[in-house]
Amino acid sequence: MTAFSSIAALRDACTILPEGDESAARAAAARQGTLTKPAGSLGRLEEIACFLARWQGRAVPALDEVAVLVFAGSHGVAARGVSAFPAEVTAQMVANFEAGGAAINQLADMAGARLCVLALDIGRPTADFTQGPAMDEAQFLAAVGAGWDGVPPGAELLCLGEMGIGNTTAAAAVAAALFGGTGADWVGRGTGVDAAGLARKAAAVDAGLARHAGALADPLEALRRLGGRELAAMFGAALSARRKAIPVLIDGFVCTAALAPLARLHGGGLSHALAGHVSAEAAHRELLAKLGLRPLLDFDMRLGEASGACLAVPLLRAALACHAGMASFAEAGVSEG
Amino acid sequence: MTAFSSIAALRDACTILPEGDESAARAAAARQGTLTKPAGSLGRLEEIACFLARWQGRAVPALDEVAVLVFAGSHGVAARGVSAFPAEVTAQMVANFEAGGAAINQLADMAGARLCVLALDIGRPTADFTQGPAMDEAQFLAAVGAGWDGVPPGAELLCLGEMGIGNTTAAAAVAAALFGGTGADWVGRGTGVDAAGLARKAAAVDAGLARHAGALADPLEALRRLGGRELAAMFGAALSARRKAIPVLIDGFVCTAALAPLARLHGGGLSHALAGHVSAEAAHRELLAKLGLRPLLDFDMRLGEASGACLAVPLLRAALACHAGMASFAEAGVSEG
Repeated sequence: MTAFSSIAALRDACTILPEGDESAARAAAARQGTLTKPAGSLGRLEEIACFLARWQGRAVPALDEVAVLVFAGSHGVAARGVSAFPAEVTAQMVANFEAGGAAINQLADMAGARLCVLALDIGRPTADFTQGPAMDEAQFLAAVGAGWDGVPPGAELLCLGEMGIGNTTAAAAVAAALFGGTGADWVGRGTGVDAAGLARKAAAVDAGLARHAGALADPLEALRRLGGRELAAMFGAALSARRKAIPVLIDGFVCTAALAPLARLHGGGLSHALAGHVSAEAAHRELLAKLGLRPLLDFDMRLGEASGACLAVPLLRAALACHAGMASFAEAGVSEG
Repeated sequence: MTAFSSIAALRDACTILPEGDESAARAAAARQGTLTKPAGSLGRLEEIACFLARWQGRAVPALDEVAVLVFAGSHGVAARGVSAFPAEVTAQMVANFEAGGAAINQLADMAGARLCVLALDIGRPTADFTQGPAMDEAQFLAAVGAGWDGVPPGAELLCLGEMGIGNTTAAAAVAAALFGGTGADWVGRGTGVDAAGLARKAAAVDAGLARHAGALADPLEALRRLGGRELAAMFGAALSARRKAIPVLIDGFVCTAALAPLARLHGGGLSHALAGHVSAEAAHRELLAKLGLRPLLDFDMRLGEASGACLAVPLLRAALACHAGMASFAEAGVSEG
C-alpha cells in the first residue's frame, strides 16, 4: 500500500499545492518593522523569519521539531565506473549513520534536529538507466511513497538529504532531462572521480538521455527513468511537506535535482523550500539558478547526507531568536530614524 | 595607564606577530583525512577546523569560551548629517544591549557566547574629522588600550563588533586612506540614509582625506585621525587576540575597516581572523577582497553590533563537531575510494 496508486495520481497531487499563509507572513514582516534595528538591516534573517511564518502559519514561528530525513539507494549505473568509491559504500555508510559516526550525525546534533535514515532497497540496485528505466512504475511509486510517509508528524522544518554511490550521475541525468544540455554540462567530480571517471559520467548521462529521449518531457518520467529510489523519496517527502505546509531545507546537487520536478510541474512548487547551500559539485550553482533558489551557504561542501541543509538550521534558529526576542523601539526607548 | 605609551610602541607591537601553530594545523588536516567522507568534501568546514587548530594550538580545538566584544563610540562627524538616526541612538542602543533587547543579545545567546559591551566615552564624541584629527594621541591610545584590555582571558574565539551613529562614514574614510579612492567609492547607505545623506557622507570623507592628506600613509594615523574610539578599540582587541593566539571573527564594514590597518602594518596581520559575513554596506565586499578575506556568510545584513560575526559562530561549532565527532574509515569499516 503506497501513497500513490499511479503516476497519474501522483501528478494530480502536484498540481494543487497550498501557497502558505500570507497573513502570517505579513504579520511577521510588520513585527520585524518594530524591532530595534534599521529597517531591513537583518537582511536574510528577516526574510527567513517571514518565510517560516508563512509556512508555519503563525507570526512567531518555532523550530522545536526539526527533522532530518536521509534516504539511501543503490544505483545500477554505478557499475559503469562513475564513482570514486565502490558501490558497497552505500550500505557501509548507512551502518555508519546508524552508529552515529558520519558527518550528518554531528551536524544534526549541532542543529538540534532529529535524524532519520531510510535505506531503500539498498541491496537491490536500480536498473542501469543507460539500458532501460532505472525504476519500473511500482518501484518508483514505492520510493516516492517512502518519502511521503517518512515526514514526521509535527515537524516544523524538514531537512532532506541522501546517500547513494553513483547518484550524482543520476542527478545530472535528471537535471539534463529537465533543463536541457548534455551530460558534460551537468556532471561533476562527485565523491572525487578523475578525468576519465568524469568522462564516463558524461557518457552515461548522454546514453540515458538518448535511451529515454521520447519520454523525458514529463518531469516524473525523467525522475523515474533516470533517477533513483533516494531521489524519488526526497521528491515524495518534499511533496508531503508542501501538502502539510512544512518548510523544507534542500541539501546539495542530488537533492536539488530530485526536487526540481516539483518546480517543473507547478510554477511555485518549491516555494516552501530554501536551499541550504550551494555545493562544490560543478552544476549545482546553475541548477539553483534555474530554480530561482539563492543558497544560504557557499561552503565548498560536496558530501550530501543533508549536511548542507543541516548546517543552515542554526541560521534559521538565529533568525527566529531575533524575531521573537528583540525589543521594539517603543519597549527599548530607542529613537526611530 | 594604557597598554601602549605611544603610537611608536603600538606600531612596534604590530610588527612581530605570532604565526600560529603549524604543527597543530597539520595534525588537524591529517585527522580530517581519516574521517568517513570523500577527501575535502566538507569544504570550508575542514578549513575552519584547521584554522582553529592553528590558532588554538591543538589538533582538536574547542569553542567552550566564545567572547563577543561590542564597542560603542560617538562621532563628531555625525553632526554633518551622515546618518539616518540621531546621535543619541548610540547611548540608547547601549542601554538596549544592557537590557538584552538588541539583535546581538539574541545572536550571542544562540551562539553560546558571552557578550560584553564597552561604551567608550559615548557622552563625548570624537572631533569632526573634516576639521581635525578625530582623536588626539592620548584618546586614540586609550581606546586601543580599552580594546586590548577587553579581550577576556581564556577566550577561544573572539567576535568583534560595534555601535556608533556615524561610524560607517568614519570607516569609509579609513578604508579610503588605506586603499585609495574617494568618498564615493567607499560610502554606503549605513543605517539607511537617502541619496542626499549619501552625498553628505562622500563629501565628509573627501574633506577628511584632504584635511589629513599628508599624514595618512601611516595606517595608525589614518585610524586615529579618521576613525573613532570603537574602531580603535576593535583594532586593539584584534591585536591583543593575535598576541594571545585567539582566533577572531570579523563583523561588517566598520569592523573590517578598523582591523585593516593591522594588515597594512604586517602582511599576515589578519591571518588569525575570518570574516563572519559580507554585509549589504556597499563597499564591504571590495574591502574584504582587498584584504583577501572570503566571508563565511552573505546575508544582506547591515546592522553591525557583531551580528554577522556572531551568526557565523554556529558554523564554526559545526566544523568542530564534525572534526571531533566523526568516525574514521577504519573505525566505521567503510571502504576508502
